[in-house]
Amino acid sequence: MSVSDILDGKLNENEVEIKGWLVTKRSSGGVQFLVVRDGTGFIQATIHKDEVSPKVFQEAEELTQESSIIIKGVVKEDKRAPGGYEVRVKDLQVVHLAEREYPLAKKEHGIDFLMNFRQLWIRSPRQTAILRIRAEVVKACRDFLDGRGFVLTDAPIFTPSAVEGTTTLFEVPYFGDKAFLTQSGQLYVEATIAAFGKVYCFGPTFRAEKSKTPRHLTEFWMVEPEMAFCGFEDNLKLQEEMVAYIVKTVLEKRQRELETLKRDITPLKKVEPPFERISYTEAVEMLQKAGQQIEWGEDLGAPHEKFISLQFEKPVFIHRYPTKAKAFYMQPDPQDPKVVLCADLMAPEGYGEIIGGSQRIHDLKLLEQRIEEFGLPKKAYEWYLDLRRYGSVPHSGFGLGIERTVMWICKLKHIRETIPFPRTITRIYP
Amino acid sequence: MSVSDILDGKLNENEVEIKGWLVTKRSSGGVQFLVVRDGTGFIQATIHKDEVSPKVFQEAEELTQESSIIIKGVVKEDKRAPGGYEVRVKDLQVVHLAEREYPLAKKEHGIDFLMNFRQLWIRSPRQTAILRIRAEVVKACRDFLDGRGFVLTDAPIFTPSAVEGTTTLFEVPYFGDKAFLTQSGQLYVEATIAAFGKVYCFGPTFRAEKSKTPRHLTEFWMVEPEMAFCGFEDNLKLQEEMVAYIVKTVLEKRQRELETLKRDITPLKKVEPPFERISYTEAVEMLQKAGQQIEWGEDLGAPHEKFISLQFEKPVFIHRYPTKAKAFYMQPDPQDPKVVLCADLMAPEGYGEIIGGSQRIHDLKLLEQRIEEFGLPKKAYEWYLDLRRYGSVPHSGFGLGIERTVMWICKLKHIRETIPFPRTITRIYP
Repeated sequence: MSVSDILDGKLNENEVEIKGWLVTKRSSGGVQFLVVRDGTGFIQATIHKDEVSPKVFQEAEELTQESSIIIKGVVKEDKRAPGGYEVRVKDLQVVHLAEREYPLAKKEHGIDFLMNFRQLWIRSPRQTAILRIRAEVVKACRDFLDGRGFVLTDAPIFTPSAVEGTTTLFEVPYFGDKAFLTQSGQLYVEATIAAFGKVYCFGPTFRAEKSKTPRHLTEFWMVEPEMAFCGFEDNLKLQEEMVAYIVKTVLEKRQRELETLKRDITPLKKVEPPFERISYTEAVEMLQKAGQQIEWGEDLGAPHEKFISLQFEKPVFIHRYPTKAKAFYMQPDPQDPKVVLCADLMAPEGYGEIIGGSQRIHDLKLLEQRIEEFGLPKKAYEWYLDLRRYGSVPHSGFGLGIERTVMWICKLKHIRETIPFPRTITRIYP
Repeated sequence: MSVSDILDGKLNENEVEIKGWLVTKRSSGGVQFLVVRDGTGFIQATIHKDEVSPKVFQEAEELTQESSIIIKGVVKEDKRAPGGYEVRVKDLQVVHLAEREYPLAKKEHGIDFLMNFRQLWIRSPRQTAILRIRAEVVKACRDFLDGRGFVLTDAPIFTPSAVEGTTTLFEVPYFGDKAFLTQSGQLYVEATIAAFGKVYCFGPTFRAEKSKTPRHLTEFWMVEPEMAFCGFEDNLKLQEEMVAYIVKTVLEKRQRELETLKRDITPLKKVEPPFERISYTEAVEMLQKAGQQIEWGEDLGAPHEKFISLQFEKPVFIHRYPTKAKAFYMQPDPQDPKVVLCADLMAPEGYGEIIGGSQRIHDLKLLEQRIEEFGLPKKAYEWYLDLRRYGSVPHSGFGLGIERTVMWICKLKHIRETIPFPRTITRIYP
C-alpha cells in the first residue's frame, strides 16, 4: 500500500496503512490536516478530533516537521485535497519525533545552505521529482539499448591514459604508479564491439575542469553506445530514436513529476525524429550573421550552442566540425577532409549539447598519423591500435550526458539539481 | 539478421547477410569451413569451390584470423555443424584483412600475456560468454529492483570521508583539497530513503587493498538497495528473492553461454528461497570443530567463508557477527548486544561472500556513541547524523558485489575474467 496507489485511484474507500514522514501540518477547528510523504508520493491526511483517541489527537498536535509516522485510515475521494484523495485517519503511531528546528523549515534559503543540507533537501517535492525523472531517464536509456541487442560492457574508471588530452584529468596515486579517472569509456567500448557487435557502457565520468558554470559537474554519468559496421548516418538515426524514446517515456511515466516542476510539456512533445541538422559551417555563418564572435575552425562554446539551440523547436545536430577542433579518433569526411564525420546534438530551449558522437577512424595508418599530429604518446595507444590491426570495421558511437539531459527535460537553471549528491570544483560534501 | 537468430532456428533456408569476424578456418577437398563471429554468436560458414566465383574462393583462402568480413548465403540445418546450423556461402566481402600474426593465435598463453591483450582476449568464446552473463546479471538486478518500486539514486564517487576506515581508500587531489574514491554508496542511499522509501545505487566502488588474491579487484561494481521501515528479516528475504531471481534469469536467458563455459547447472538450479542460515557463533564452532584457526570475535577470512560455503548446497547467510568485527552503523541485536543485526551471504560451491548487509542504527544517541567508540571524526558524519535527527526510521540494506556473483555463477577460478577491463594492484592497462 503506497501513496502512489492512492493517487492512482486504486484504493478509494479502502483501509490503508501508510508509513512516511510529515511534510506540513495545519489545523482548523477540530481537524488537523497533515501532508504525508511515503517515498512514492504526497498525500493529505485529516485527523478529526471526534474520530480518534485523545492520545492520538494530542500526539498529532505535537508532531514536528519531518517526523516519521505510521497512519491508518480510510481513503476518501476529495476534490479539495491535492491529488484528489485524502486519508481519513483512524490511528497514528509516531516512529520518531523529529528535532524541533528543521534546518530547511524556512521557505527561502541560499543555494550554499541548501547544498550543505543536500541530505535533507532531496526530500523536498521539487528535488524528489527531479531525481525520479533522472531514474526514469537512466532506465529508458538502458531499456532502449537492451531492447535492441546492445550488450553492456562496463568501461574501467582507472585508466592509464587520456582520451582527449590530460589537462582536465583527475590523477590518482596508484600503488607507486599513477592512474587517471576516466573522461569517457569510448576507447574501451570500441574494443568490445568486435566481441559483441553493439555495446554500451554506462557509468560515472570525471572532468577536472576549472569551469564554474551552471552546466558543469566534476563527476557526471554518461551512456556511451558503440556499433560495429555502422556509419555516420545510422549513428545519428539511433541518437534520434533514443532521445525521442527517453522523452516519450518520461512524458508517459513521470507526468506527476513534470507537473510538480511546472514543466511546460509542449516543447517536449515535439521531440520526434527526424531532428534538425545543420553543418558546423552553416552554424558559424548563422552565428556570424547574428553578430556573435566566432571564426571558422574554432570549437563552439556554450553561448554559441545556446544560440543555435534557440533557433529550432526540435533537437538539432551540428555536424562536420573542423578536424582540429575535435578528438583525434574521428573519421574524416570523404567529401571534405578538413572536417570530420561527427555531430553534437543540441537540446532545444537553449540547453545546448547533450550528445557528442562520431564515426571513428578504422584505418590503422590514418589513426597512427592522427595520434602523431595530436602529439599523443603512441605507446599508450598500442592496445587501441590493435583494434585496427585485427579485423577493423567502420564503426560509430556517441556519448549522452545524463545530467544535461535531465536538466533539459526538467527545464532547470542549474545542473546541480540533476544528481543526488552533486560534485563541483568547490564541493564534495555531503 | 544475426547469428543468434540463425541459432534460434528462425532463419532456416533463408538467405542471410552476416557481418562479422573470422574465428577459425580449415579446408577439406573443395570446401572451406569458416567459423564466423558477429557479436551475437558463432556460426559455421561453408564455401564450396563450385558455388562461388574463383575470386571469392581465393579471397577466402587468404583470409587471416580475425579478419572482418561480410558473407551472404543460405542457412542450412546441419547436425554436424556446431549449433546445428551453417551458412552456405554465395558471396564474401573482405572488410579488413587482419595482420597475419594474431597475438592470441596459439592455444596456450600465460595470464599476463592474455591480460596485456585484454582488448583482443575478450573476443574469445569463453570471455564473451562470461561478459554476456555479467550484462545479464546487471540487468537482472536492475529489473528486479525497478519492478519492486525501488528508485535508483546514484551515490557519489568522490567522497569526503570513509565508510569503513581510511586505510584502503584511494585519495585524489581535488582542487587543492583531497577527496576519496567511494568504497560503498551505503551512507548516501540511507539519505535518499526518506525521499523515496526504497532506493538503490549501482556503480563502481574502489578499494586500495594490497591483497593480491583471486577474489580482489581495486575497482568493482556494487548494487546497494536500502529500505525505510525495514527490519533485519525483511532485508534477508529481499536478498534471497533477488539472488534467486538473478540465477533464474541467467539460467533462462544465458543457457548457451553457460554451455560454452561447461558450467554444471545442477547447483544453480537449487538456488531458491529460503536460503540456509547460521549465526556467526555457530559458524565459529563449526570452524573450530574442523580444526580451523579462529577465535570468537575475529572477522571471518576467505578460507573460513569457503569452508562454511562448502557445507551447504544453497547460499548460506552467516548472521549476527560481533559488534567489533563489523562497521559502526550496524544495529545491535536486542537479544544480545554483543552482536549486530547483520548477515553476509555466502555463495555455494566454496565461493564465499557475495553480499554484506545489515539493519542500520536509527537512534541518534547510539550512533553518536558508536562513531566515538570507533574513533571516527564526528564532524565528517554530521550530515549522516541529520538522518537520525529528522524522521529517523528503522532501515536496512545490503550490497551485492557484481563480479563475485558473476564469478560464482560462471564458476571461475579468478575474478579478473568477470569485468571487461579488470583493475588490480599491478594492472591498469589496457
